[in-house]
Amino acid sequence: MIIIMEPGATEEQINKVVKKLEDNGFRINMNLGDVLTVIAAIGDKRLVQPQSIASFEGVREVKLIQEPFKLASRESKKEDTVIEFPNGVKIGGKNKPVIMAGPCSVEAEYNGLLEVAKVAKKCGAQILRGGAFKPRTSPYDFQGLEEKGLELLKRAKDETGLLIITEVMDTTDISAIAEVADILQVGARNMQNFKLLKALGKCEKPVMLKRGAAATIREFLLAAEHIMYAGNEQVILCERGIKGIDSTYTRNTLDLAAVPIIHKYSHLPVIVDPSHGTGRRYLIEPMSKAALISGANGLMIEVHHDPDHASSDGAQSLTIAQFENMMNDINKLIGRLDWDNQHEQQ
Amino acid sequence: MIIIMEPGATEEQINKVVKKLEDNGFRINMNLGDVLTVIAAIGDKRLVQPQSIASFEGVREVKLIQEPFKLASRESKKEDTVIEFPNGVKIGGKNKPVIMAGPCSVEAEYNGLLEVAKVAKKCGAQILRGGAFKPRTSPYDFQGLEEKGLELLKRAKDETGLLIITEVMDTTDISAIAEVADILQVGARNMQNFKLLKALGKCEKPVMLKRGAAATIREFLLAAEHIMYAGNEQVILCERGIKGIDSTYTRNTLDLAAVPIIHKYSHLPVIVDPSHGTGRRYLIEPMSKAALISGANGLMIEVHHDPDHASSDGAQSLTIAQFENMMNDINKLIGRLDWDNQHEQQ
Amino acid sequence: MIIIMEPGATEEQINKVVKKLEDNGFRINMNLGDVLTVIAAIGDKRLVQPQSIASFEGVREVKLIQEPFKLASRESKKEDTVIEFPNGVKIGGKNKPVIMAGPCSVEAEYNGLLEVAKVAKKCGAQILRGGAFKPRTSPYDFQGLEEKGLELLKRAKDETGLLIITEVMDTTDISAIAEVADILQVGARNMQNFKLLKALGKCEKPVMLKRGAAATIREFLLAAEHIMYAGNEQVILCERGIKGIDSTYTRNTLDLAAVPIIHKYSHLPVIVDPSHGTGRRYLIEPMSKAALISGANGLMIEVHHDPDHASSDGAQSLTIAQFENMMNDINKLIGRLDWDNQHEQQ
Amino acid sequence: MIIIMEPGATEEQINKVVKKLEDNGFRINMNLGDVLTVIAAIGDKRLVQPQSIASFEGVREVKLIQEPFKLASRESKKEDTVIEFPNGVKIGGKNKPVIMAGPCSVEAEYNGLLEVAKVAKKCGAQILRGGAFKPRTSPYDFQGLEEKGLELLKRAKDETGLLIITEVMDTTDISAIAEVADILQVGARNMQNFKLLKALGKCEKPVMLKRGAAATIREFLLAAEHIMYAGNEQVILCERGIKGIDSTYTRNTLDLAAVPIIHKYSHLPVIVDPSHGTGRRYLIEPMSKAALISGANGLMIEVHHDPDHASSDGAQSLTIAQFENMMNDINKLIGRLDWDNQHEQQ
Repeated sequence: MIIIMEPGATEEQINKVVKKLEDNGFRINMNLGDVLTVIAAIGDKRLVQPQSIASFEGVREVKLIQEPFKLASRESKKEDTVIEFPNGVKIGGKNKPVIMAGPCSVEAEYNGLLEVAKVAKKCGAQILRGGAFKPRTSPYDFQGLEEKGLELLKRAKDETGLLIITEVMDTTDISAIAEVADILQVGARNMQNFKLLKALGKCEKPVMLKRGAAATIREFLLAAEHIMYAGNEQVILCERGIKGIDSTYTRNTLDLAAVPIIHKYSHLPVIVDPSHGTGRRYLIEPMSKAALISGANGLMIEVHHDPDHASSDGAQSLTIAQFENMMNDINKLIGRLDWDNQHEQQ
Repeated sequence: MIIIMEPGATEEQINKVVKKLEDNGFRINMNLGDVLTVIAAIGDKRLVQPQSIASFEGVREVKLIQEPFKLASRESKKEDTVIEFPNGVKIGGKNKPVIMAGPCSVEAEYNGLLEVAKVAKKCGAQILRGGAFKPRTSPYDFQGLEEKGLELLKRAKDETGLLIITEVMDTTDISAIAEVADILQVGARNMQNFKLLKALGKCEKPVMLKRGAAATIREFLLAAEHIMYAGNEQVILCERGIKGIDSTYTRNTLDLAAVPIIHKYSHLPVIVDPSHGTGRRYLIEPMSKAALISGANGLMIEVHHDPDHASSDGAQSLTIAQFENMMNDINKLIGRLDWDNQHEQQ
Repeated sequence: MIIIMEPGATEEQINKVVKKLEDNGFRINMNLGDVLTVIAAIGDKRLVQPQSIASFEGVREVKLIQEPFKLASRESKKEDTVIEFPNGVKIGGKNKPVIMAGPCSVEAEYNGLLEVAKVAKKCGAQILRGGAFKPRTSPYDFQGLEEKGLELLKRAKDETGLLIITEVMDTTDISAIAEVADILQVGARNMQNFKLLKALGKCEKPVMLKRGAAATIREFLLAAEHIMYAGNEQVILCERGIKGIDSTYTRNTLDLAAVPIIHKYSHLPVIVDPSHGTGRRYLIEPMSKAALISGANGLMIEVHHDPDHASSDGAQSLTIAQFENMMNDINKLIGRLDWDNQHEQQ
Repeated sequence: MIIIMEPGATEEQINKVVKKLEDNGFRINMNLGDVLTVIAAIGDKRLVQPQSIASFEGVREVKLIQEPFKLASRESKKEDTVIEFPNGVKIGGKNKPVIMAGPCSVEAEYNGLLEVAKVAKKCGAQILRGGAFKPRTSPYDFQGLEEKGLELLKRAKDETGLLIITEVMDTTDISAIAEVADILQVGARNMQNFKLLKALGKCEKPVMLKRGAAATIREFLLAAEHIMYAGNEQVILCERGIKGIDSTYTRNTLDLAAVPIIHKYSHLPVIVDPSHGTGRRYLIEPMSKAALISGANGLMIEVHHDPDHASSDGAQSLTIAQFENMMNDINKLIGRLDWDNQHEQQ
C-alpha cells in the first residue's frame, strides 16, 4: 500500500507509521519530499489493515496498489474457471454461452412450470430457473412456495433433464436446496450476507452470486472471495443491473462493461440477467445480444407461461411465444460467436 | 392504484384489466380519454400486485397512490413510537436524543472496552455499541470475536449499567445475541435479508435497522414493515449514509433529509450514525449537530480507546479525548433543543 | 396529468385545483374515493405546469401521463429521422451505422491529424472527430487550439473528404464552427446549457447532443426538444456513459439500454461513444460491438497517432494499429447486421 | 503523482515513464518492488497531465497526491475569504450567516416581488434572489422575463436597499446582468460551462457558483478554480443537492457534509440552498438549521407571495407567512451560533 502523509507531518508521525508497517513485515520505501512524504509499503495487506494505518496522526491517505481479492483474481489463476456438470454442461471459458430460463417464482400449478421447462429445453436452454424462496421488498408480496417449490423443481428436472438453479436466502435452507439444485443462487440483496456466503463455501454445489444493486466490482469480487476462501471455488458471477439515476424507463441500469472488466480481473464465469437488469420486456432481446457479444458466459431469462397471472415480476417476464421468437435470434448469434471463436483459435 | 393504458389500447385490453381488478374487490373509476385511458382502482393492493397488472397487454404504466408500507406508516399510527427500556431509557418522540457510543468491534482486550464504556457513560451516553459478529467486505479482515465478544459486552453492561446494542448477521445467532443485547442491530448490508428480518419479528427485543447503502426510503420502511408484520413493532431506524457520487472526501453521503422525511411518513424513531455516514473524524461533530437539529432521536458514534490499533474502522473512530470534547458541545445542543421543546409544548 | 389529493383534503381544496385546471382548458375526470381523491386532467400541459398544481394546498402528488417532450417523441413522428449529408452519408433509420473517429483534441501538429483521418477513412469511417474548443475540468489542462484547430480540421476535411464533427461550447462560437463542421457537437457538460441549445436551434447544421453525466433519458430528450423547438430538427443523440457507483475500473457507466429505449420513445438517431463511456482502451471493442448489436446508429471513437503524447484523454485513445485491428471486427459485425437487416426487410 | 506499473512492466517501459517525467522537471523516487514498481513523481502537475502518463504502456494506474485545484485551496490561502459589499454586508469567515431570499423567477407583476423583498428585509435577509434568465428543463416552461426581469430587480433593490443575486446563463448576458446584480449566480446546470466561468473571471462582481447535480467536490472546486484563474477571486460556493437514489420524497439529496468538507479544503464561503436541495416545503426549515449548524455561511431560500400561481417551482417555495415563521427560529439559531462563536474566540 501507499501512505501519503499530510504536508506538515512530523518526523515522529512518519516514524510511527513506518514502525507499525515494519513490525508487520512490510518492506518500506520512502520518499521524503519537500512538501509531502510518500511511503510505499510492500507486504501482505492481511497483516495490517489500510484503515488502521489511515487512522494514524499525520496520515492523509492510504491507497491500495493490489486488488484486495486473491482467489478470485486473474493474477492468482490465469486460465478461465470452467464449471462442469455431470450431464456435460459447461459454464465458462470458451464454451458456448449457456441459457438459464424459467419463471421468476415457482408457483403452485406444476403444468405451467413444466410447459416453460420443455420450451426452454427445446430452444436450447440447459438450466431451469425458478424461485422457491423469494426475497420480496414488501412483506405483502408473494414470498414463495418454499419446500413445496423445491419439490416441483425436482419434478421438472426429472422430467426434462434440465439442470436447476434456485435461490438460497438463509444458512438454514442450504442443505434442503442443495439436494435439488445444481446451482445455488445468492440474490443481489444478499450479496454481502457474509454468513450465507461462508456457509456456501462449505457447500459442494456451484454458487451463482448476483451483484448487489449498488455494489462496485471490487465489492462483488470480494463477496465471491468470501465463498472461495471458505472452500468453494465453483463460483459464477451474475451482472443484473445496478441502481441508476433513471427509474422511469428501466428498473435498473444494466452495466455491461462489467462483463469484460470481470474477465480481465477474474477467471470466474459471468452470466448476465437482462430480465432484472432492465425490467422491461422489449429490452431483453437487445440487451441479451449485447451481453453475449461483450463476452458473457450465459444469460438468465425470465419466461412465464402466463405472465398476466404471475405471482411475481410478470411485467418483465417473456411469454413462451416471445421467448421462442427471441431464442431464434439468440441461437443464431451464439452460432456466429462460436464460429468466430473456433476460427480465431486456429 | 392508477393504471395508464397505452394510447392505442383496445377496448378488450381495457376490459381485461378492469375485470381482473374488479374480481379482486377493487372499485373502478375510469376516464376514457380521447388519447389515453386512465383507470383508478381503489382497493387492497395486497390482493393484486401492481407488477402483475403492469404485465397486461396495453398497459403503459401502473402507479401506486398509497405508500406500500402500513404498520410503519404515520397514517396507521399518529403518535410517535417510543421504545422504553427497563432502566427508564426512552428512544423516540419528544424524549431527549440518546447517545450510543463504543468501538466498531469488540476486541480481545476487555480493559479498552470498559474504559470507553465508562467515558461514554460519564459523557451522557445511555447505550454501549460494539460488534461481536462483524460483516466485513473482505474475508481477510477481522471478522469479530463472536460469542467471546458477547461475553465482554455482558461484562461491560454489568459493570456500567449501560444498555447494549450489537449486530446480528444470521438467524441462527439471534437467540444468543438477544440474551446479552438490549437492542439487536441489523447492518446496512442485511437490510433486505428478509429471512433475518422475519426472524427478528419473532424476537422480543427492540431492533435497530440500518438503511442499506443504496436503499430508497420506501425500501427502508418496507424492510421495517417486514419486522413489524412478523410481530415485533419495536423498530428503530438508523440513517448511516448512502453511496454517493464522491468517495474521495467521504465514505458515504449522509442523507440528513431522511430524518424529517421519515418523521413525516412514519412513527418510528430515527437514529443517525455520522461515523459510518461520513467515514472521517473531522466530520463527525458537525454532522452530529446537524442530525440532532434536524430531529434525530439519537446518535450512534464510534469511539475507541486506541484507534491506531483498532481491529476495524480505526480511521473513523474518535479517540476518548475527541469524544469527550465533542460531547461537551453535543450536550449543550441537546440541552437547548430540550429547552426549546419544553418551551414550545407549553 | 393526474393529481392525487392528500387523504384529508377538503372539498374547497379539491374545487380550487379543479377550477384552475378547467380555467386552462383541461377536461376533468374525478374519482371521489373514500380515502383519496384522484383527479385526472386531460389537456395541454404547457398551459399549466405540474409543479404549479403541486403547490396547491391539499395536493399530495402530481403525475405526468404523457411524456413532456413532443417534437422529439416517436408519437409525434413515427418514422426514424435520417440525417443526410451532401456527400451521401446518412445517419439514422435502417442505414448502416456510421463511424466517427479521430483524436480527442486537435493538436498543433497537422500531420498526426491527417494520418488518423486517412486511416479512419481507409477503415470505413465517414466522419472525423476532433476538438478545437475543449471543455476541461481543470483550468490547467490543455484548453484546445480554438480557431487554429478549426483550420486544421478544414484542411483534413479538404484532403480526405471526411465529414467533420467538433464541439461548440458557447453561443458566440457557433457561426465560426458551423463554417467548418458538418455536425456541431454539444458536450455532456453543456447538455443543459439552454442558451446554447436555443442558439443551435437557429443553426442549419445538424447537432449531436451528448447525454449529461447524470441526465435521465427524459432530461436528455427534453434537451433535444429545446434545439428542435427553436427550429432545428436535425438532432443526433449520443450516449457517452453516466456517473456510476464505480470509478475504479471505468470512467463512466455506459448505459447501453439507452439505445433501444431512445429508439422506442424517439425517432432521433443514437450514437454511442465507448471511448468516453468507459475510459479504458480494452473496453472499447466489446462495448462498440454491444452498442451496434443493441441498435446504435453509429459509434464515436477516439484514435490518436501517438496517445502517449496526446494533449487530452490519451489513456482512452486507441493507437492507429489498435483502431485498424478493431475495425476489422467492427466491419464484419456491421456487415452481418446489415445482411440480417436486408434479409428481415424482405 | 504516483505511478503504479503493471506487475509485468518491462525496464524499458519504466524508463520511458521516468524520462517523460524528468523531462518535465519532476523529481523521481522509485520503488523497484519484486511484484510492482511504484514511481513517486514530485513536480508541477500542470506540466504533465496524469491521463497522459496513464496511457503509457505498462502503466497500471496514476494517482494524484495533491489536490488539482490551487487558488481555491486552503493550502494556498489559510484565512477564510470574506466577500464585502459596499453596504457593509459580509459573506464568509466568522461573519454571521447571510440570508438570500426571494422568488424562483421574477414575474411580470412587480408588487409581488416588492412584497417579498420587504418581508425578507424585515426578517433579516440581506440579499434578494430572483431569476430573470431561467434555465428550464423543458422548452415549454416559463423561460424568464430576461431584461424586463432585471429592471424589476433594479427597482426592488432601489426601494429596499437589499443586494441582488440573479443567474447568468450565457457569456453575452454578463454585462447587462452585472449592471444590476451584486452577485452573479451560475446555476448547477452550467457549473461546467467553462466559457461562462472564464468570462465571469473577467467580471468585477462576486460570483456564486452552484454545485452541479452530479459534481464531485473536486469537480466543484475545479470549476471555482476556472473563475479564479481567469482573474476573479470573489467566488461563493453553493451546495444545492445532488442527484440521489430516491426521487420519491425529495427532488435532490442535500449533501450537508459538503459544508465542513469545503471549509477544510478551501477558503471560499459556502451557502446552502435547501429549497432546491430538497424540493419540499416541509424540509426547508430542518435542513436550513442543519446547514447553519454544520457551518454554512448563509442560506438561499425561495419565497413567493403566491406560490400557487408561481411561474416556476411553486411547490418548493415558502409563502410569506411560512417564511416569516421559519425566520423566527432561524434568527434564534443564528443568534446562538454567533454567541457561541464570540464566546469561543475570547
